[in-house]
Amino acid sequence: MKNYKIYVTAKEGIFNPAGATAATALGQLGYDGVNNVRVGKFIELQTKDDVQRQTVTEMCEKLLANPVIEDFRIEEE
Amino acid sequence: MKNYKIYVTAKEGIFNPAGATAATALGQLGYDGVNNVRVGKFIELQTKDDVQRQTVTEMCEKLLANPVIEDFRIEEE
Repeated sequence: MKNYKIYVTAKEGIFNPAGATAATALGQLGYDGVNNVRVGKFIELQTKDDVQRQTVTEMCEKLLANPVIEDFRIEEE
Repeated sequence: MKNYKIYVTAKEGIFNPAGATAATALGQLGYDGVNNVRVGKFIELQTKDDVQRQTVTEMCEKLLANPVIEDFRIEEE
């Protein structure tokens, strides 16, 4: 069994609505030291031993991330 | 300026609908080596220098995570 961790983040320059909303809400809660918030996805993928990193990259490109507006990074444990 | 990275994951035993959907969809795409998928949040928080980790923990408990069903981990860069 293999464990992959995938970090999906909005590309540089792409507006991140969830992050903008969180930043506003934190300000309203009284946290005035927040400059910027960006919200992405953290995906834990458990696979059989024969699933290679290249296959996981494909899964990200096809389904787990949106390569037009998101970057992703894969870590194997 | 400080950079915090926050990883929000569903607690052990809590059903993760986004992960279950992704696992099914990957199977339908022909990837049969996937055992389990869990989808959480990856939050990048940029703050002023005087914002301590304890404050970020508070932000997670109050807004960024749902402590009833989610765990979170904070890293400072």
